[in-house]
Amino acid sequence: MVRKDGRAPDQIRSVQIERNYLIHPEGSVLITMGNTKVICTATVEEKVPPFQKGQGKGWVTAEYGMLPRATGTRTQREATKGKTTGRTMEIQRLIGRALRSVVDMQALGERTIWIDCDVIQADGGTRTASITGAFVALKDACDKLRQAGSIKKEPVREQLAAISVGKVGDQVVLDLCYDEDSQAEVDMNVVMTSSGRFVELQGTAEGTPFSREEMDQMLVYAEKGIRELMQAQQGAVT
Amino acid sequence: MVRKDGRAPDQIRSVQIERNYLIHPEGSVLITMGNTKVICTATVEEKVPPFQKGQGKGWVTAEYGMLPRATGTRTQREATKGKTTGRTMEIQRLIGRALRSVVDMQALGERTIWIDCDVIQADGGTRTASITGAFVALKDACDKLRQAGSIKKEPVREQLAAISVGKVGDQVVLDLCYDEDSQAEVDMNVVMTSSGRFVELQGTAEGTPFSREEMDQMLVYAEKGIRELMQAQQGAVT
Amino acid sequence: MVRKDGRAPDQIRSVQIERNYLIHPEGSVLITMGNTKVICTATVEEKVPPFQKGQGKGWVTAEYGMLPRATGTRTQREATKGKTTGRTMEIQRLIGRALRSVVDMQALGERTIWIDCDVIQADGGTRTASITGAFVALKDACDKLRQAGSIKKEPVREQLAAISVGKVGDQVVLDLCYDEDSQAEVDMNVVMTSSGRFVELQGTAEGTPFSREEMDQMLVYAEKGIRELMQAQQGAVT
Amino acid sequence: MVRKDGRAPDQIRSVQIERNYLIHPEGSVLITMGNTKVICTATVEEKVPPFQKGQGKGWVTAEYGMLPRATGTRTQREATKGKTTGRTMEIQRLIGRALRSVVDMQALGERTIWIDCDVIQADGGTRTASITGAFVALKDACDKLRQAGSIKKEPVREQLAAISVGKVGDQVVLDLCYDEDSQAEVDMNVVMTSSGRFVELQGTAEGTPFSREEMDQMLVYAEKGIRELMQAQQGAVT
Amino acid sequence: MVRKDGRAPDQIRSVQIERNYLIHPEGSVLITMGNTKVICTATVEEKVPPFQKGQGKGWVTAEYGMLPRATGTRTQREATKGKTTGRTMEIQRLIGRALRSVVDMQALGERTIWIDCDVIQADGGTRTASITGAFVALKDACDKLRQAGSIKKEPVREQLAAISVGKVGDQVVLDLCYDEDSQAEVDMNVVMTSSGRFVELQGTAEGTPFSREEMDQMLVYAEKGIRELMQAQQGAVT
Amino acid sequence: MVRKDGRAPDQIRSVQIERNYLIHPEGSVLITMGNTKVICTATVEEKVPPFQKGQGKGWVTAEYGMLPRATGTRTQREATKGKTTGRTMEIQRLIGRALRSVVDMQALGERTIWIDCDVIQADGGTRTASITGAFVALKDACDKLRQAGSIKKEPVREQLAAISVGKVGDQVVLDLCYDEDSQAEVDMNVVMTSSGRFVELQGTAEGTPFSREEMDQMLVYAEKGIRELMQAQQGAVT
Repeated sequence: MVRKDGRAPDQIRSVQIERNYLIHPEGSVLITMGNTKVICTATVEEKVPPFQKGQGKGWVTAEYGMLPRATGTRTQREATKGKTTGRTMEIQRLIGRALRSVVDMQALGERTIWIDCDVIQADGGTRTASITGAFVALKDACDKLRQAGSIKKEPVREQLAAISVGKVGDQVVLDLCYDEDSQAEVDMNVVMTSSGRFVELQGTAEGTPFSREEMDQMLVYAEKGIRELMQAQQGAVT
Repeated sequence: MVRKDGRAPDQIRSVQIERNYLIHPEGSVLITMGNTKVICTATVEEKVPPFQKGQGKGWVTAEYGMLPRATGTRTQREATKGKTTGRTMEIQRLIGRALRSVVDMQALGERTIWIDCDVIQADGGTRTASITGAFVALKDACDKLRQAGSIKKEPVREQLAAISVGKVGDQVVLDLCYDEDSQAEVDMNVVMTSSGRFVELQGTAEGTPFSREEMDQMLVYAEKGIRELMQAQQGAVT
Repeated sequence: MVRKDGRAPDQIRSVQIERNYLIHPEGSVLITMGNTKVICTATVEEKVPPFQKGQGKGWVTAEYGMLPRATGTRTQREATKGKTTGRTMEIQRLIGRALRSVVDMQALGERTIWIDCDVIQADGGTRTASITGAFVALKDACDKLRQAGSIKKEPVREQLAAISVGKVGDQVVLDLCYDEDSQAEVDMNVVMTSSGRFVELQGTAEGTPFSREEMDQMLVYAEKGIRELMQAQQGAVT
Repeated sequence: MVRKDGRAPDQIRSVQIERNYLIHPEGSVLITMGNTKVICTATVEEKVPPFQKGQGKGWVTAEYGMLPRATGTRTQREATKGKTTGRTMEIQRLIGRALRSVVDMQALGERTIWIDCDVIQADGGTRTASITGAFVALKDACDKLRQAGSIKKEPVREQLAAISVGKVGDQVVLDLCYDEDSQAEVDMNVVMTSSGRFVELQGTAEGTPFSREEMDQMLVYAEKGIRELMQAQQGAVT
Repeated sequence: MVRKDGRAPDQIRSVQIERNYLIHPEGSVLITMGNTKVICTATVEEKVPPFQKGQGKGWVTAEYGMLPRATGTRTQREATKGKTTGRTMEIQRLIGRALRSVVDMQALGERTIWIDCDVIQADGGTRTASITGAFVALKDACDKLRQAGSIKKEPVREQLAAISVGKVGDQVVLDLCYDEDSQAEVDMNVVMTSSGRFVELQGTAEGTPFSREEMDQMLVYAEKGIRELMQAQQGAVT
Repeated sequence: MVRKDGRAPDQIRSVQIERNYLIHPEGSVLITMGNTKVICTATVEEKVPPFQKGQGKGWVTAEYGMLPRATGTRTQREATKGKTTGRTMEIQRLIGRALRSVVDMQALGERTIWIDCDVIQADGGTRTASITGAFVALKDACDKLRQAGSIKKEPVREQLAAISVGKVGDQVVLDLCYDEDSQAEVDMNVVMTSSGRFVELQGTAEGTPFSREEMDQMLVYAEKGIRELMQAQQGAVT
């Protein structure tokens, strides 16, 4: 099988991560993966949600949105609709959980980091690009807190990135673009740390159920992709 | 490690599935797994959602709810709150996707099956119990359609069940009750078919990330549990 | 006139009240009247609403819901709709008012009892069954508070039950099932105490207006039915 | 007992009904009962709600509102709150049901009459004043339809009015003002037709439950008040 | 050009301002401009919004509504719709801003004045009539506060009124009624103080853009109209 | 007075307009004015809103949003809040009205152009930058329709741009940045066409009312700024 854009099955799209993309946020990134572009920002708020109060621990939470014309046909604005869709809620819960797994909340101290991921152009893999970009924005915000002396100990325990992998026809492929995703039999999102451990694994058979062997191959591809994304995170320029 | 309720690490809780639990729905089940109790119903509606119209294919969709005192402390009613929470949306999307994966939409014809899963008592594993129970209600509704001559070909391709598995402390355990779930390092929900293939795999590191080896052991336990649930589904009495 | 199910005009349906139906709530009941089944729970919360604060008095409030397939055709979930219907609000206000009328708020002390009535199967008379069942759950919750020493004086002043009565064709009938209710000329809900006094009386001419004489006969039937329900409340088993 | 405003126990407040109060609606009334003032309008719409379509029958529906400063302290606007309260829903359902009971829907033909009752000043009895005033607006709108030849047969079968009655202390009193209502033991709303039959009867024990004898006396007072209101309706000037 | 109702191009409609129109509010006015009628009330609340707390300064805020049949065809109730429309928000923001511009917040002290403008009959110019009427209600409420000794210094710095002006065909006209407004090329709302300075100027080309000369003429007309309205405000009777 | 960023009172900030900024929309622009950055897109939909149907005329409508960290402190997402704020509604109504004023709806034909303006970085003047940028996106979308032969006659009648002008202290200044805007006495937004006529004029005295002379000076500055913006629109590169 030849992929539409000529990539090898285990090849990710071209990635750029531009740091300090905006002037206001404590951390901000524009991540580009192929035609997918997401603005990820990290905001420090000097308080925690009620359920967390008085425990000396911090919190990380995430919200996700898409510009109406990030997509091929216009998507109705959730603000206009008056509610967030199930898809959006699922994604923002995923981003929040993933980032929390690598943050030492004790070290962060009683403050919240708000992550906002806004897709300005979508071509598949927006949730994984959001996690990969948001990690860099989060790290930058934490570095500012350390430089300002607000926190003493590094709160970010490990590097974190995410990628999608799936099965299109009979072929396992890495980093699906929208066209591939919309005809995939299986779609799996994988979030890993630099120590090679899993934080999230969400595999869904959109078409036919998948075997253990197929899952194993998907995980091999995913790990390869995540290693490459971690290099892009490290090489991100301002 | 001894589990609080004396179960072996790979042992599921006692399961009962009571069919035809209610008089009105086309399919209805009360599933009991330990102290978790869910009413699952299947409703046949002779039309499909707009995006599906005129293609001769059916649709399966699911909604999930919890009675306010299904839980240890009272949970505010979503109807009162005026919106479904992210958790509810995530669960009902999962149930719908899982059931759709074993239904031949062409065979079902242009009609919708609504699945409703309402937790009347919660003690962990409500989303997986919902899937396991809903499968039986769905099958019963389809059988009625076949008996009535409304459909010719069996639309249910395979049997389907779901279970949770996780890591509590250093121990992998099957079918977590609420107490175990609330202190788990890893929580994974697995949906499988009778052919032993995966439909959904959702693993989350609530505490520390998990290794490939731990994942492998979780999958072994999950498959064992799902085999036992499938026997309970087959033995379900009216 | 012979009633469809063979009952005499002044005969109620068969009633069962099962106490301690659920493990979590302070009081919980499954009440069955013919084919109508309602789960009623009572939750104790150690605070009162803002308008009641600092007066040393308690509060009782109620919420009501119906599972989507409690009814013959599926009813859309209020959580999905994003709001409670006028019918639901009317019913939950009625249940709350009725129960408050027999509670000594001073004796209850500054705490709230939340009543939740959830219809799992509907065949007419769900609001009156809710009141009759909720009374038992409320009493059980209060007994627990007394046993725990949290309250000194019995807060429940009298026994309370409710029933529907109406006019179908020219015949006054007691405890209407859904079929009777949907063709009734007049529909009246009566809530009474064990001292034979009225707490609520809501009569509506769905078809033609009703005379004073018809109302008088309806009240005689209603009182008979309520006496029988009070015996069922006393005989409720765990 | 002397009533605060010097009225006898069975005396209603001074009533004025001003017809054609506004220039746009098909029927419009300003009803004044003591200090309570309600604008009631009737709007003819040449279609019926979906559930009523194609049956050659009409529909009557009602909505109710209150200006924020109709009351002693400002009430938050329901438009701002984003939803109608339970009280509002209960009242508008009552007004609609009451008016529908005297309308021959076949004679009205496939059209809807919208009733809007907006309280501009509240001093007790707003829901009953709304019904009494709305009846006149409804009749005027129907008369216009007949004059225009749109309908042949008179759709209004009988005259309709409503009043509140209650028990304050030990005394049964008619047409309670706000001060009386807020300390009433019992509050009952009665809707009657000119043939002396009941359309709605809603009695609530706010304080202590009430006996059969008390109810009987309340109904005698209510009937007296409604007869007087019907004279005011007939004498309403433009 | 002759205007439909015979007015000269720079002539306003007949104006009445009735003070103390309602018994409950601290200030209340019924303003009538031709067929447009608006009830304006001012409510004093002894607290300020959170963002204003602890600064010793007051606040003025406004809300606006329309009865469903204030208009020629029935407008859906915003309470039923579950939200305020953009038009309503725009108008209430305008009314609030306009009134705040002539109030000395320091002199008012830490309290809020709520302005409510409810249109009971609409025939164009409801937002400007609201401002003109609300100014009188606001002044009355402030006078009561001064008489009660709650405030020492007059908080109302200047008199304020508003009017609409526009271009219908080629003719600049003052105080447009609904018919003129719906065919206007340009619609401008002007809010001025008694010192002849502008508080708000909102000109919109509904049809074709307008020139600087046309704008100048509109401002001349507007100032004339506002002078006349200020006399009506001063002559308002109770 | 020297402006904080060294600009002359009648000097606009540096402007860039980047066309075809996104791959999906029919027209898309990134407009940068100083630190304010807005993505403006134009989407062609081959239908019109219900009120416009069957008249052979088109429609232009606009929506506006802001990323949460477009601002100095994080602004809550309107999708999360469940509604658009009054400010947003006001702005999107303004953008829509302004663009419609230069479009020949007959020439456009029965289709809608959706304008979306999303602020990714805010430093004052976002609504006027939105209009200036959206005009270019709208023109590009119309050009595509003409190239495709879908429309015959040019629907864009004139060029359109917008700018803010105001009074800071005693000084009239053009194109206020956020710091200036937040301390301005007067804030005015002006929308003009290339023929030098007004489409919208919205002047608000945030502090003290303004005189006719001040208004005249503001309009001179505004016209100068708009001329310069029109050159930037013409020079916009892909």
